[in-house]
Amino acid sequence: MNVDGTPYRTIWLGADGWSVEIIDQTLFPHAFAMARLASLDEAAHAIRHMQVRGAPLIGVTAAYGLALAMRTDPSDDHLDTARATLFATRPTAVNLRWALDRMANVLRPLASGERPAAAYAEASRIADEDVAINQAIGRNGLELIRAAAARKPTGVPVRILTHCNAGWLATVDWGTATAPIYMAHDAGIALHIWVDETRPRNQGAALTAWELGRHGVPHTVIVDNAGGHLMQHGEVDMVIVGSDRTTATGDVCNKIGTYLKALAAHDNGVPFYVALPSSTIDFAVADGVTEIPIEQRPDDEVAWISGKTDDGRVARVRLIPEGTPVANYAFDVTPARFITALITERGVIPATPDFIARAFPECSALA
Amino acid sequence: MNVDGTPYRTIWLGADGWSVEIIDQTLFPHAFAMARLASLDEAAHAIRHMQVRGAPLIGVTAAYGLALAMRTDPSDDHLDTARATLFATRPTAVNLRWALDRMANVLRPLASGERPAAAYAEASRIADEDVAINQAIGRNGLELIRAAAARKPTGVPVRILTHCNAGWLATVDWGTATAPIYMAHDAGIALHIWVDETRPRNQGAALTAWELGRHGVPHTVIVDNAGGHLMQHGEVDMVIVGSDRTTATGDVCNKIGTYLKALAAHDNGVPFYVALPSSTIDFAVADGVTEIPIEQRPDDEVAWISGKTDDGRVARVRLIPEGTPVANYAFDVTPARFITALITERGVIPATPDFIARAFPECSALA
Repeated sequence: MNVDGTPYRTIWLGADGWSVEIIDQTLFPHAFAMARLASLDEAAHAIRHMQVRGAPLIGVTAAYGLALAMRTDPSDDHLDTARATLFATRPTAVNLRWALDRMANVLRPLASGERPAAAYAEASRIADEDVAINQAIGRNGLELIRAAAARKPTGVPVRILTHCNAGWLATVDWGTATAPIYMAHDAGIALHIWVDETRPRNQGAALTAWELGRHGVPHTVIVDNAGGHLMQHGEVDMVIVGSDRTTATGDVCNKIGTYLKALAAHDNGVPFYVALPSSTIDFAVADGVTEIPIEQRPDDEVAWISGKTDDGRVARVRLIPEGTPVANYAFDVTPARFITALITERGVIPATPDFIARAFPECSALA
Repeated sequence: MNVDGTPYRTIWLGADGWSVEIIDQTLFPHAFAMARLASLDEAAHAIRHMQVRGAPLIGVTAAYGLALAMRTDPSDDHLDTARATLFATRPTAVNLRWALDRMANVLRPLASGERPAAAYAEASRIADEDVAINQAIGRNGLELIRAAAARKPTGVPVRILTHCNAGWLATVDWGTATAPIYMAHDAGIALHIWVDETRPRNQGAALTAWELGRHGVPHTVIVDNAGGHLMQHGEVDMVIVGSDRTTATGDVCNKIGTYLKALAAHDNGVPFYVALPSSTIDFAVADGVTEIPIEQRPDDEVAWISGKTDDGRVARVRLIPEGTPVANYAFDVTPARFITALITERGVIPATPDFIARAFPECSALA
């Protein structure tokens, strides 16, 4: 999407033709800067330390990470170890595995000399496909927003709540939850987006607010606690969130706190949509709550927070008493029964096993 | 309760016999310090700027604020303006009005010369009654925890989630939601408390964690987004929260986000208790969601956060992009249907109009 009039993607091949450039998302929202990945280790570091985040972008970065690995050593052994290194960076993201499997399937049959070029080509294809998929999600979700707008007087905004950042910064471009929003905005539909700040890492406050602001979409940041109150008072027309992992039955594993918003939407009759590419669907999982392992991240993400001081420096401050124990669960699972529909690249479908299998028969047959 | 072995209340008469001393809660958890209130304006400032917070403590501080006002000018006019000044500080807290009404009812019939001494005596009585009420809430809630402990193997902790700070720092002593916890802990029942950090003001992370830690109650701080996940996975045996305002029908207005935890408790069969003194019950309100005005507080509470820097200074940092709009709703309403029971000074009662009226007949008759 555009940043101050300049079109960007979140990841692209450097001018040297082999290094990979990314927007360094750890600096948001206080600085807009790039980082250069010149090795497997730098790619793994970028994923682990969330310089890139969001399931689709993690997958593409891992694909380029394999390409960087093949460039220095295209052997079978290195293919295996590089794949294991990248897979270990963020165990919950299912399309990290998906991208690595796809890359390995392309690379393994090739002679080692052919692997570097093929790896770059395949990583580039995955990136372009992500953009096309998000555009399709956007077109499909746009119709839901258009229908909501049609039920209001002209110019009265459709109010959409979103959690975390399933924006273009979480993908290569367009985003998943935000693709319908950008398309509706560009189509002239009045919108107002409630942006959950999304503790502990504040991806909503830092990333979603930033990208919506740069694109000109009206929005308001709220604490994660506020969404239930807004829905009780009729201030939310729909919720659209992303998914890190979707089960064959329609359960959605997404940023911690998503489940609470789904409960509030359900209690107040607010439609709750999940926008997701089919690459997040794990057809091997039937029960999201019991089967999906939930990543626990470092205590410091809860105990400390970074921001900009009054005198313009980026600094971190400690929020809790010294020595206080902390737990930091990164995701939760929203059971399918609370999900109005899934917005996929193949259409808007109910979050049920039969509709999911019918929409993606080639994937469900593999499970 | 004790702080490092020394018993404290949150508010007490100064050694000079007329000024009022408080624990300055804006400095938590990074400093434990007192503040002296020597005038009506200082008392109003302390309430407005949350040097004192929590419905019961706000009421007692307002009562002492009226006493400070009567000391300098005990006229009818000044009684009226002082009462209006104090009432305007935090419009949502119903026992702010309750304490001011009670003080005015005592003071108005008196000759002006008698008012100062009577005001101090009545404020002191309100403080002592708050302590006695919280002890009664504690004894009643203790039985719920004792019953939960009896269903577990010996020594396996009862896991209680709480939101915000309904602790002794929110009252004169003992707290409301924490009174059963302190009594259970002191009775030797194994406990583990999940402490919601409670954005935007982080009263859980800053206050509840501090007071539990100083008293030796095992606890873990979590982000507000995490409670649903914990309940889904059987990690919470009960929720106990406080109430800023309770309707005659059992709806509870409490810190923003309480409603989301009630929804999660309901969805997972976890008992959801609200500990409250009857002074928070507003018998004039039947429907909490539609009738209770929700205070909106300054944007800065969401946009900025304070903490301790690596080099030990208390500093604030900005969390969102410059110019980003913010909304800051301070409370939400949990409908009675999600509340397992109310823990009051007169016993544990269902959150229904008939049980509430029967428990407090002298109050409901006035409505």
